[in-house]
Amino acid sequence: MSGYTAPLDDIRFSLDHVGGLGDLVCLEAFRHAEADLVSAVLDEGARFVQDLVAPLNRSGDIEGSSLVDGEVRTPSGFKEAYKTFVNAGWGGIDAPAEWGGHQMPRVVGVAFEEMFTAANLAFSNCPLLTAGAVTALAAHGTRDQQDRYLPKLITGEWSAAMNLTEPQAGSDVGALTMRAIPAGDGTYRLTGNKIFITYGDHDMASNVVHLVLARVPGSPPGTRGISMFIVPKFLPDANGEPGEANDLKVVSLEHKLGIHAAPTCVMAYGDDAGGAVGFLLGTVNKGMRNMFSMMNTARISVAIQGMAVAERAYQQAAAFARERRQGRAVGASETSPIIDHPDVRRMLMTMRSNTEAMRALLYRAAMHQDLAQHARTEQDRGWHTDCLALLTPVVKTWCTDLGVETASLGIQIHGGMGYIEETGAAQHWRDARITPIYEGTNGIQSIDLVMRKLPIDGGRFVHRYIDSLRLSVAGLRELGWDRAAVSLSTALDALTEGADHLLSKAGDPNQQLAGASPYCTMFGIVAGGAMMAGAAQAAVRTGHNQKQVTTRFYLEQVLPTATGLLPAVKAGAGDLFAIDAASL
Amino acid sequence: MSGYTAPLDDIRFSLDHVGGLGDLVCLEAFRHAEADLVSAVLDEGARFVQDLVAPLNRSGDIEGSSLVDGEVRTPSGFKEAYKTFVNAGWGGIDAPAEWGGHQMPRVVGVAFEEMFTAANLAFSNCPLLTAGAVTALAAHGTRDQQDRYLPKLITGEWSAAMNLTEPQAGSDVGALTMRAIPAGDGTYRLTGNKIFITYGDHDMASNVVHLVLARVPGSPPGTRGISMFIVPKFLPDANGEPGEANDLKVVSLEHKLGIHAAPTCVMAYGDDAGGAVGFLLGTVNKGMRNMFSMMNTARISVAIQGMAVAERAYQQAAAFARERRQGRAVGASETSPIIDHPDVRRMLMTMRSNTEAMRALLYRAAMHQDLAQHARTEQDRGWHTDCLALLTPVVKTWCTDLGVETASLGIQIHGGMGYIEETGAAQHWRDARITPIYEGTNGIQSIDLVMRKLPIDGGRFVHRYIDSLRLSVAGLRELGWDRAAVSLSTALDALTEGADHLLSKAGDPNQQLAGASPYCTMFGIVAGGAMMAGAAQAAVRTGHNQKQVTTRFYLEQVLPTATGLLPAVKAGAGDLFAIDAASL
Repeated sequence: MSGYTAPLDDIRFSLDHVGGLGDLVCLEAFRHAEADLVSAVLDEGARFVQDLVAPLNRSGDIEGSSLVDGEVRTPSGFKEAYKTFVNAGWGGIDAPAEWGGHQMPRVVGVAFEEMFTAANLAFSNCPLLTAGAVTALAAHGTRDQQDRYLPKLITGEWSAAMNLTEPQAGSDVGALTMRAIPAGDGTYRLTGNKIFITYGDHDMASNVVHLVLARVPGSPPGTRGISMFIVPKFLPDANGEPGEANDLKVVSLEHKLGIHAAPTCVMAYGDDAGGAVGFLLGTVNKGMRNMFSMMNTARISVAIQGMAVAERAYQQAAAFARERRQGRAVGASETSPIIDHPDVRRMLMTMRSNTEAMRALLYRAAMHQDLAQHARTEQDRGWHTDCLALLTPVVKTWCTDLGVETASLGIQIHGGMGYIEETGAAQHWRDARITPIYEGTNGIQSIDLVMRKLPIDGGRFVHRYIDSLRLSVAGLRELGWDRAAVSLSTALDALTEGADHLLSKAGDPNQQLAGASPYCTMFGIVAGGAMMAGAAQAAVRTGHNQKQVTTRFYLEQVLPTATGLLPAVKAGAGDLFAIDAASL
Repeated sequence: MSGYTAPLDDIRFSLDHVGGLGDLVCLEAFRHAEADLVSAVLDEGARFVQDLVAPLNRSGDIEGSSLVDGEVRTPSGFKEAYKTFVNAGWGGIDAPAEWGGHQMPRVVGVAFEEMFTAANLAFSNCPLLTAGAVTALAAHGTRDQQDRYLPKLITGEWSAAMNLTEPQAGSDVGALTMRAIPAGDGTYRLTGNKIFITYGDHDMASNVVHLVLARVPGSPPGTRGISMFIVPKFLPDANGEPGEANDLKVVSLEHKLGIHAAPTCVMAYGDDAGGAVGFLLGTVNKGMRNMFSMMNTARISVAIQGMAVAERAYQQAAAFARERRQGRAVGASETSPIIDHPDVRRMLMTMRSNTEAMRALLYRAAMHQDLAQHARTEQDRGWHTDCLALLTPVVKTWCTDLGVETASLGIQIHGGMGYIEETGAAQHWRDARITPIYEGTNGIQSIDLVMRKLPIDGGRFVHRYIDSLRLSVAGLRELGWDRAAVSLSTALDALTEGADHLLSKAGDPNQQLAGASPYCTMFGIVAGGAMMAGAAQAAVRTGHNQKQVTTRFYLEQVLPTATGLLPAVKAGAGDLFAIDAASL
């Protein structure tokens, strides 16, 4: 049993009615993405992940990756599935045609990414990290670097890893100490250790390209003195094929709560031959800029992980609830499947409507990403760039927290069976728990939202954005959905009030930081609500009955929880610091 | 490192100012529980669990219990710690003096239970189950049965296990099929299998007394045909010591997400000698009554587990946040401990204030339990009986969900380290995840609240109860805590509105069931708020500054989330059933 069926109906609905695919394919860059081609991509992608990737999810969790003689071995079947991934070209679905990608809109890439991730979260981290490196190289690499690395990374023949974290430098990247010494020939020699390096080594690709943050001699302290280097596991030879082994190795693998199939490596650079050969990517001391190119892509992808694991958990729970019989539902004459009990229904509807809301906001974010690059006017590109910047921390936080919560409901629906590992429901929950942590903890995301994104254009942008969401309130009224309209309007008022409050405290950062997390969560719930309102209109227009139910459920029963976060947003830092650290 | 320090300050505060200990010890039954004695019990109890029980938490998780030659072996050190538990008499702290217990008030028993559980959740399940059996035997046993079993169960020399669940009979207990055939000599022979039997066997006690639900021939179907039997692992001999082995065995242990040290057994009865010898407890076909005697005690204890694991997770997270340095706090000139960052503070304050609110409501519930039995007038005993009945599903649901949520925040504070098993933060989260499931899933609790407890006295009781909570609003106003007073008053209005709505749908059970879960959660948050309001008054009176901060934080920043649940309480079942089961 695959355990996962791609929700193609909702994916197509979201592409068409939230992700704006119809408009995107009218743009020059995407003119080749014809409707038939997109359909074929989705159908093929669904088949691939269902048949080959999803069945490895549970076995990958049990077997895990292992370190054998200094090399990482992925679980049985991963190599073969990855080979198919490479051969079919899935890695390049939304990558630039210039380097061999298929250059589909990002929304279509997200649709495939969702399916691949839901099929196997631990597996999906490998292409996720490669895609981040592609973004960084495309933005900051020299022509020669791009020619050398991009084609192989885009196919996935080679994969990539991000080397940021050191024991003393996690959220505080600026504290890193890894050194890069110029070798005199334009290259550098890197020495030091990195931790938490996902897919830092593995046996699926013929080379692993490490993007490593390090300091060159004499660089300023903190984040202003960080540079990024390309440090391949095997140095490309004259033909561009993997050649001499570089001076880097995996010291150990972490024993983690979940994503057991994804190797989390402790890496050592320069232990054996005095330094790993590295090539500067971009400008010296501007490594943070590169990092953000890479991280912003990855943050959206981690948000997709939250949504995807929620979808997977939902499917498993719904299947169980249809089969498992306990008690009699109201009016039933014999034992009922538990899906007939209102409380189980509530859990399932909560899981489903939240998942659909996440999908909607993520596909919308992907649309902004497409239009940030390809919209016809500079003004439009600017608008979409800002929208994407605003939504990146929001979706990362909201979707990952909800991924955990949704997987938890999935366990609950299974009752005692949910607590037994063989059932598989617990794995989704364990796997999901990393997503609020990596690629910038959700606390860091919330700070980004409040300290960097709310102040865009002096705070005027966020108000324009919230106003753009308000159009959906009128849309709901046109449908006669008055309760939903009031719910959305109230929530948007709270969102505005929160923004006003936080912006008004610009001179007192602790007051802003104190409200950051609840505000970020609130933003996700409410923006998700606005997307569901748009989806509701489309659902009525197209006669999509199920979508009308899930959108109404979200708007009337989930969205109202957002407003309860406002007091925490506005409470300030006083009581947070009223107990001294030693007494906490 | 023990990893746990009993929060004696807050425990004493809660005993004195929420649990009503001062009034309880004026009652005849508890006159011997003098202040010095209670203090000594708490201090000794804290030392015991810190020194001997807490250090086994992590090692117990790693080692787990195992089945060797048909016998369960607990992890290293458990036997020795349990022996100390028995010898020191901790098992009998609040058990009746008549059977050798110390007959302290239940609130004092809860205080010890909290400490023991926080020290080692998996371990604590063993005495928890024994205590449930003590309740059942004290209420329904014959004098002979009581004399034979109670003294040994109260010391813990023997332990007990609850045998309810069968593969097809989980939440639906009435579906069980285990058979009990009269042997002609007043005893019965039991045959069949039970699953999910926690501590169904182990090597710490010299006997395991199974309380087993089964059907006698000719009994009516469903819950009206269930009887309860005492089925000891070893039949007591003429001296009351463990004698001949009974016909029962452990078939296998489950591989669980957490509480690895607590063996979860599949039990087989009557496989080898045609039937296990069982002794009827109480009346034929009235086994459900016995079960509820046992379960109600156990439900409160599971609620304590939620609170206790939250306390433990909080302590570990706070210790980490004091040590771990990342980034500079506002105004700091060098790297700060992360406890100085507002967002980390928010997580810690959320963990702490929620934990204190849970403790408050649980100690109040224990006070109701004491007064249900020992209050001077029948009217008072009736009031407290109803309060306890109302609060049992509420604390079970609210505290266990919050236990999971709090442990999750504990992981988050650790960042990447939280996802590494060696850190130990993940264990609390895994361990906590069983608590919303066992002893009646939280869905079942919510149904109990709405279908059985709200209707007490035609719905008048719950209104009297909510009115009793309203006294705290005036108390807050007297303190000048206006924002908190408004918050509590608003929340109580929502609680009343929810009760009115659900009671008004008495003829339409699906409408009631549809709102049960959100209402139960809301009840916990709000009742917890009322307890915190009472605590705030005591804190101001006694000059307890920290308590003023945690109570104000809860009232102003946590409590407002409750109201957001009201729309879901009132939404009804329409949209829950609007998508057919096959399409969900």
